[in-house]
Amino acid sequence: MNTFITAASRRGPRDGKRRICFPITSRAYYGRSQLLIRKLHAHPAVDLELMLGGSILLDKYSHHIAAEIESEGFNISAPMFNVVEGGNHVAMAKTACLTALEFTNGLHATDPDVVVISGDRFEQLAIAMAAAYLNKTIAHIEGGDVSGSIDESVRHAITKLAHFHFVTNDEAHRRVLAMGEDPRYVFNVGSLDVERAAQVDATLTEAMVNRHGVGCVIDVSRPFLMVIQHPVTTEQENRAHLEATLRAVGSLGVPTIWFWPNPDAGTAEMSETIRHFREHHDRATANTRFITNVPVDEFVAMLKATACLVGNSSAGIKEASYLGTPVVNVGARQRGRLAAENVLHVDYDAAAIGAAIERQLRHGRYAASPVYYRPDASQRIADRLIDLELYTQKRFFDAAALST
Amino acid sequence: MNTFITAASRRGPRDGKRRICFPITSRAYYGRSQLLIRKLHAHPAVDLELMLGGSILLDKYSHHIAAEIESEGFNISAPMFNVVEGGNHVAMAKTACLTALEFTNGLHATDPDVVVISGDRFEQLAIAMAAAYLNKTIAHIEGGDVSGSIDESVRHAITKLAHFHFVTNDEAHRRVLAMGEDPRYVFNVGSLDVERAAQVDATLTEAMVNRHGVGCVIDVSRPFLMVIQHPVTTEQENRAHLEATLRAVGSLGVPTIWFWPNPDAGTAEMSETIRHFREHHDRATANTRFITNVPVDEFVAMLKATACLVGNSSAGIKEASYLGTPVVNVGARQRGRLAAENVLHVDYDAAAIGAAIERQLRHGRYAASPVYYRPDASQRIADRLIDLELYTQKRFFDAAALST
Amino acid sequence: MNTFITAASRRGPRDGKRRICFPITSRAYYGRSQLLIRKLHAHPAVDLELMLGGSILLDKYSHHIAAEIESEGFNISAPMFNVVEGGNHVAMAKTACLTALEFTNGLHATDPDVVVISGDRFEQLAIAMAAAYLNKTIAHIEGGDVSGSIDESVRHAITKLAHFHFVTNDEAHRRVLAMGEDPRYVFNVGSLDVERAAQVDATLTEAMVNRHGVGCVIDVSRPFLMVIQHPVTTEQENRAHLEATLRAVGSLGVPTIWFWPNPDAGTAEMSETIRHFREHHDRATANTRFITNVPVDEFVAMLKATACLVGNSSAGIKEASYLGTPVVNVGARQRGRLAAENVLHVDYDAAAIGAAIERQLRHGRYAASPVYYRPDASQRIADRLIDLELYTQKRFFDAAALST
Amino acid sequence: MNTFITAASRRGPRDGKRRICFPITSRAYYGRSQLLIRKLHAHPAVDLELMLGGSILLDKYSHHIAAEIESEGFNISAPMFNVVEGGNHVAMAKTACLTALEFTNGLHATDPDVVVISGDRFEQLAIAMAAAYLNKTIAHIEGGDVSGSIDESVRHAITKLAHFHFVTNDEAHRRVLAMGEDPRYVFNVGSLDVERAAQVDATLTEAMVNRHGVGCVIDVSRPFLMVIQHPVTTEQENRAHLEATLRAVGSLGVPTIWFWPNPDAGTAEMSETIRHFREHHDRATANTRFITNVPVDEFVAMLKATACLVGNSSAGIKEASYLGTPVVNVGARQRGRLAAENVLHVDYDAAAIGAAIERQLRHGRYAASPVYYRPDASQRIADRLIDLELYTQKRFFDAAALST
Repeated sequence: MNTFITAASRRGPRDGKRRICFPITSRAYYGRSQLLIRKLHAHPAVDLELMLGGSILLDKYSHHIAAEIESEGFNISAPMFNVVEGGNHVAMAKTACLTALEFTNGLHATDPDVVVISGDRFEQLAIAMAAAYLNKTIAHIEGGDVSGSIDESVRHAITKLAHFHFVTNDEAHRRVLAMGEDPRYVFNVGSLDVERAAQVDATLTEAMVNRHGVGCVIDVSRPFLMVIQHPVTTEQENRAHLEATLRAVGSLGVPTIWFWPNPDAGTAEMSETIRHFREHHDRATANTRFITNVPVDEFVAMLKATACLVGNSSAGIKEASYLGTPVVNVGARQRGRLAAENVLHVDYDAAAIGAAIERQLRHGRYAASPVYYRPDASQRIADRLIDLELYTQKRFFDAAALST
Repeated sequence: MNTFITAASRRGPRDGKRRICFPITSRAYYGRSQLLIRKLHAHPAVDLELMLGGSILLDKYSHHIAAEIESEGFNISAPMFNVVEGGNHVAMAKTACLTALEFTNGLHATDPDVVVISGDRFEQLAIAMAAAYLNKTIAHIEGGDVSGSIDESVRHAITKLAHFHFVTNDEAHRRVLAMGEDPRYVFNVGSLDVERAAQVDATLTEAMVNRHGVGCVIDVSRPFLMVIQHPVTTEQENRAHLEATLRAVGSLGVPTIWFWPNPDAGTAEMSETIRHFREHHDRATANTRFITNVPVDEFVAMLKATACLVGNSSAGIKEASYLGTPVVNVGARQRGRLAAENVLHVDYDAAAIGAAIERQLRHGRYAASPVYYRPDASQRIADRLIDLELYTQKRFFDAAALST
Repeated sequence: MNTFITAASRRGPRDGKRRICFPITSRAYYGRSQLLIRKLHAHPAVDLELMLGGSILLDKYSHHIAAEIESEGFNISAPMFNVVEGGNHVAMAKTACLTALEFTNGLHATDPDVVVISGDRFEQLAIAMAAAYLNKTIAHIEGGDVSGSIDESVRHAITKLAHFHFVTNDEAHRRVLAMGEDPRYVFNVGSLDVERAAQVDATLTEAMVNRHGVGCVIDVSRPFLMVIQHPVTTEQENRAHLEATLRAVGSLGVPTIWFWPNPDAGTAEMSETIRHFREHHDRATANTRFITNVPVDEFVAMLKATACLVGNSSAGIKEASYLGTPVVNVGARQRGRLAAENVLHVDYDAAAIGAAIERQLRHGRYAASPVYYRPDASQRIADRLIDLELYTQKRFFDAAALST
Repeated sequence: MNTFITAASRRGPRDGKRRICFPITSRAYYGRSQLLIRKLHAHPAVDLELMLGGSILLDKYSHHIAAEIESEGFNISAPMFNVVEGGNHVAMAKTACLTALEFTNGLHATDPDVVVISGDRFEQLAIAMAAAYLNKTIAHIEGGDVSGSIDESVRHAITKLAHFHFVTNDEAHRRVLAMGEDPRYVFNVGSLDVERAAQVDATLTEAMVNRHGVGCVIDVSRPFLMVIQHPVTTEQENRAHLEATLRAVGSLGVPTIWFWPNPDAGTAEMSETIRHFREHHDRATANTRFITNVPVDEFVAMLKATACLVGNSSAGIKEASYLGTPVVNVGARQRGRLAAENVLHVDYDAAAIGAAIERQLRHGRYAASPVYYRPDASQRIADRLIDLELYTQKRFFDAAALST
């Protein structure tokens, strides 16, 4: 490659620091990575660069989070508009392509030593692909989990492009090794979400709930439900699935905080379903407060206070396991994921969902489970991102061959 | 999703046929897939669609191959220009992104039941990603192999996005299963390249060699070498590596057919290295004929006639294993791949390369190996592409869990 | 160019028909072009192809309009998702680029004889650019007007890429000629919007208004205002400008139908301004009904019934001139455009806006003006699209040189 | 727009300087702009930023020119790979789109006060479009000329997007005004190419010619021809046109320096035509030296020494007018452009071309013409780029209205 081009396009000398790049494409990713990002930012041997893109710059909360990110003094580059409108699979696929196209430029210009890919969203695979073609060392957080949507495939595909793996639980650890990753580079560090949740000591107040969203006022001193049900992009029947939950929850008459789904393929129809249900079943939703988004600390405070979390959020599997929150997990999205005993799995069936919620209401809170928890998850990741020897050429690690 | 949009953009009714889409992005992929494509095209229950893109439309041989494809009467759609110039990693990454962007449109419009991804080139991963987001069933040919470049990661990432797997050998079979793929969908069918090679009965003539390229006239009745050495995109020292081979071969004085490398990142410097060597070592290259490209049948005839194939082409591992061609495999590109006894592995070292070639010249041809060969590979794939039940939601298949 | 590629990618033989392609990128464009499209569709010598893209597939009314388009039996191709989210200039520019990229593929595959570009939206310039590079004959509807935003430049740039020009008024005619276009190809055919409006004979009913939107119920038997105020993308003070109108209209106490602005750069802040004003000036907006969108016929019926149209919509200049609707045109967006006597121009000043509205209320309706009206505008355009000899090489037509 | 995003993505404070951005997409543009760029770079009130893209980074001479640019110490940003391979209209259109997409990011990040667009190449229109959507003030160099390809339309479309106009001759001045541009912003400053040529005092040596390219050795002390014939993208018969010139020149037997055409749509077939002719008419090309590219100073020295320049290069119209070089201009590409008396226009006809060359050989050199020459063109442009008040909202300037 032309050395001039290289020189002209890339950030200056590193002064011996390791340049670590974090592509952040949604608010959730920022929230979950905050502890890690702060530790890397503070480390004298690290030149940290946040690359913002995707929906993080788009929703109406971006002012909020943008101000928050800026106030931390991070080095932020390449905020880009690369989300294609449409809210369907075609738009999602194109968003991934456009994101990868633009991050290719950004990664080439920034020239990082390590690119940190987080989770399983489609833009993250696209960015991992771009980083792989650019011959960067890729670190992946939260690989190895199983789940019930396209996320499952995306997560494992990222694993096969990544060089360092920070998994959150023993089963994921085993799977990443089975997939041929070198044990020297696979680390069970626990979940960043759970570490974050464990550090929250806020107690839920009425204001924390009722200053958000619209609908009934929630009395937090009495039992209340939380519902978070995202569309599952490989299923055609998101609408019917959501209605099952709406009916089940509506018929119980328990005060409920209902979170609107994340922006994603299928979201529009989910939102429409909720709106339609609200208009036609006003008694069923008379006890419901609809909320779009709350700060992480307040969300954790709600998880610690709720009588039961219903739906298919990963928070039910991860944060709730440690917080002891009773969970009714509905449908395929989290199916197969390692779960602690706080989770009851049910199908998209109003009666079954209702029965499971009642069972959880009777049971009450659970003991904290260690399945996703390690102390200092963020510190463990930071240490390795800083110290591990970089490499780019991967080779399938043949455990079976070794053992014979 | 808006049903109108769906209706407007998609090909009409299938009449009960299974629509199978083949994205073909290089000449090599077409050559290797020809037997399979013909069988699918001829089958009454299949609605086959070839989607051409990438470099297949670009090089100076595309007229040639395009006429060939057209003469077969296939249904061809969406030829697109999506190769970004530059011949470096940035251009390669962008090509992948642009390819995926355009195939998203093409796949959405064609609305296939199955998308067949072949091998491990970067555009194929990008297309697989687009197909996955569009919720298509993905079939992958030639997964599970190990090798020594970015191809290794790309190949396994495709595996984790794919639903049906057609591997070419037992080791690949074992690896694909280890990676968590469901045994019901993983098939060792042997190599399409080897099946194709096995069907060639042409005998090499002087015309077959000397009507191509430039340089010394090769006497095919006497021992001659073939050299194919591609750049390895994760290595900085392509130039030095190539010079080692140039020196080794040049010093032997054996007539040699030297193939220019494929267009890819690093190709320009490879070509320049060869040109430079030619100009400054005219005696060393006095016995050499430089060739860009030959028809598949003539290439196989050369493999059957050559005294030794030198370099890092996959033909040395696959076709040559069945044809019994002596091979000196240089460097990391094919390292780790299952190889028959016809292959000697050496490092980028002129002396070692020279010694290995001489050893192969003394040994002569090998017996045919079955490692990559199954009779009717193409028929086996075709049968399964037609008959297997389609699915889209993948789940890590936990062999270890089963066995306990 | 490779003839194979050409053959493979393009639609079949034309049977002597002229293939005319209409890129439609917004609902408004479809509404305005409907009469013309129907005439072309019905003509035996025309092979009409609608290419849908941009926001037409995105807003919540797209179901509606899509069903309408489909019911007409048109040949529809290439619906594509190419709108980049963000609602700012960067997103708008990227949308143009992505649109042009995808229409390049669509135009290449469709291979039209003529591409019909309409108006002055940014995607239309991008599509015109793609068509020009593909060597297509470009027809432009509604060139030559002046106005007060980026639209002005975009419109004239399209003129300089176009081969046939269908202008709507004498001043535009003169300007297009001044810009060096050949008089043989410039036609003042009147406005398609006005022709459409002239054919509407519906009388406004209460249902037509009050089944749309939210807010106060409008009594259509008594005087009411209509307000349509779009953001002007070259001005920073959209918010202040809108507030001037909100205050002026609010203080009059006249029942008002207020249309939300079109989706475009600056729209988000406009909508937020309206929402904020509503919340803080509930008395001022007590007489207001907020409406997003109505069918064309009902919109025309409103124009025919309203006491005054306020804001910066082109309907105030064009349709209202023929319908005799009193108009208060605010700010720079339509400034300089040929206007009939029904229009009062005022600045972004609440007092001036209020005074002008009162003056119009006192004046009442105007006589129909012919400035934008020719009978059979659509037929005139259709005839020429069908009969004019095609050409592609443009040459500045030097009127001054001729006259000397 | 989100202020955070703005802050994060843009270059820091300007310290009162005017930030001027030069998108440079080909070697030719750099050559022609060099004097201007140096003056801007040296000016204390200017913050100059070169944005490199397009083919400038791609051809084999880019090392050369890149080193040259770098050595000047300019601030260079955003080198990007955005040329789509294919060498046809589709690839050209896509290149424009991809270029605009990437320059949108670059321009947004750089946030210039003025973007300087040069000439009429398709990427320059695409960049102008992006800059217009981003609300930048656009300066255009070399508008108003007429010529005979798609360049004509592109050039005028850029004019209609631009705010400041630096034209090279009186006729162009008149046309830009006719197109409705404001006289306060239109300046006839003469041609940068001619200013550059006028400053070259090198005398042609044999080495200057014969160290480049391949073919016959040119004796520069005796009469020799230069041929530069580019493809004309709106004509199908590039090949036939080129053969006419090849035959005409070949039959004269005069030593000839033949320049390969620029990379562009149609170039591949041009090059193939030349190669084919060489192989089949070796006698006709026995006196010919084929050259790809030479430094600007040496090119000017050749123009000053050649007996006649043949083909369709703009150098025949511009530089040659001042240098007094006899020119035979072939075909439509420069047709209609203001030309001095040194130019004979002929059609694509071998006999006519031959006769015209012979006529020019008999005539010998011409007197210097002032049509494209103003002293200090670059200084005049620089002064205005620095001092003119910036504006973005354009308005058609109605000269006719003024005069009545």
